[in-house]
Amino acid sequence: MTTKPPMRDALVAAAFQLFLERGYEAATIDDIVALAGVGRRSFFRYFPSKEDVVFPDHERALADMTRFLEASADGDDPVARVCDAARLVLGMYAENPTFSVQRYRLTKQVPGLRAYELSVVWRYERALADYLGARYADRPDGKLRADVIAAAVVAAHNNGLRTWLRSGAEGDAGAAVDHALEFVRAAWNGEGATRQGPPEAEDDVVIVITKRRTPMWRVVREIEAGLAEEGSPT
Amino acid sequence: MTTKPPMRDALVAAAFQLFLERGYEAATIDDIVALAGVGRRSFFRYFPSKEDVVFPDHERALADMTRFLEASADGDDPVARVCDAARLVLGMYAENPTFSVQRYRLTKQVPGLRAYELSVVWRYERALADYLGARYADRPDGKLRADVIAAAVVAAHNNGLRTWLRSGAEGDAGAAVDHALEFVRAAWNGEGATRQGPPEAEDDVVIVITKRRTPMWRVVREIEAGLAEEGSPT
Repeated sequence: MTTKPPMRDALVAAAFQLFLERGYEAATIDDIVALAGVGRRSFFRYFPSKEDVVFPDHERALADMTRFLEASADGDDPVARVCDAARLVLGMYAENPTFSVQRYRLTKQVPGLRAYELSVVWRYERALADYLGARYADRPDGKLRADVIAAAVVAAHNNGLRTWLRSGAEGDAGAAVDHALEFVRAAWNGEGATRQGPPEAEDDVVIVITKRRTPMWRVVREIEAGLAEEGSPT
Repeated sequence: MTTKPPMRDALVAAAFQLFLERGYEAATIDDIVALAGVGRRSFFRYFPSKEDVVFPDHERALADMTRFLEASADGDDPVARVCDAARLVLGMYAENPTFSVQRYRLTKQVPGLRAYELSVVWRYERALADYLGARYADRPDGKLRADVIAAAVVAAHNNGLRTWLRSGAEGDAGAAVDHALEFVRAAWNGEGATRQGPPEAEDDVVIVITKRRTPMWRVVREIEAGLAEEGSPT
């Protein structure tokens, strides 16, 4: 966690007050610095552009995510790790629900902000895909697998996040995103002899992967072994 | 297929000639219309901005994709349908390999074009997700499933497309994208009693999904029925 200078916070607060009062386009950087009681140069010390003040914490979240992925151990499950990395981004939104909801509504209205957000989301997705690509380097189609899983994790995260934001940040952001990420984890995590089904069926479905030429008696044994490992049916 | 007016083609050709000779930023709209031998108003009749002339066929591809999805019958497999919709977009790139490779290289160099491309990709992804969302309307987590599968299909398509573009458009674009899409189709398509494995194992793997409480004799029958349907092992 980096400390956030008070002047930076004051600029963000002033910007959002004006965006809500006057609209994003009508509020200028001059208006923002006047309200915050600082000079234009102070604005540009913290934010390269007006768009950046709308998303003041993404650079920090991206840096946190990159550090988190770099600290991954070889024994970590790659899909679980990228799901946890996505949860770090959610933490940024959940830290300040009111601000997150305001930003969500603003972004829906302003095409330039939507474009900015897409470029940020793309950077998160690349960070996840690069990590997965390194972990899957020795696998056939490792890069493809990495790209697809990273996209699926980002889509699931955003689905859970938007569900929470649309509700006006009522309820538990973490639960909404956990549910969405579990959907992806269940689909991609199973790479051994047994594999979890999609979450809607997780309580009562067994999935068995076996070689086509495996004799039936061995398939039956694999299924029984899988059931025993996961706990016997009630 | 819409017919493309010759003046529009001339503007695209002039724009790319100048972008390659001088760089994207240095070539102005005035330079482009002068080389094409038309007036500025003609440029803006076809292209809202300089970015749009770099991606002259996306609106047509988006319209084609939307029409194709709207024409889907209830009996169509939704995942197969969105994979076919993604192949329509590929067709646009494969129509003109030289132009596609030039654009790919240009887009990598110019952040504004990269942002434009992300917004186009987002619109394709929304079109796929909206279609899937309608098809999955009655399912638990239908919207989540739709978002995740749409993102996975787009990521796979782009992986195959980029592989082909990076090779300088040598080889078969369709084969690269088919391979990538098969990876997604295999992961998400299986919702019955049998299910294909991931492509790296497609020749010799059988996946069985069954209820945990299903008696073993019925599991065996399901496996045998699945094998018979897909052709018996050699």
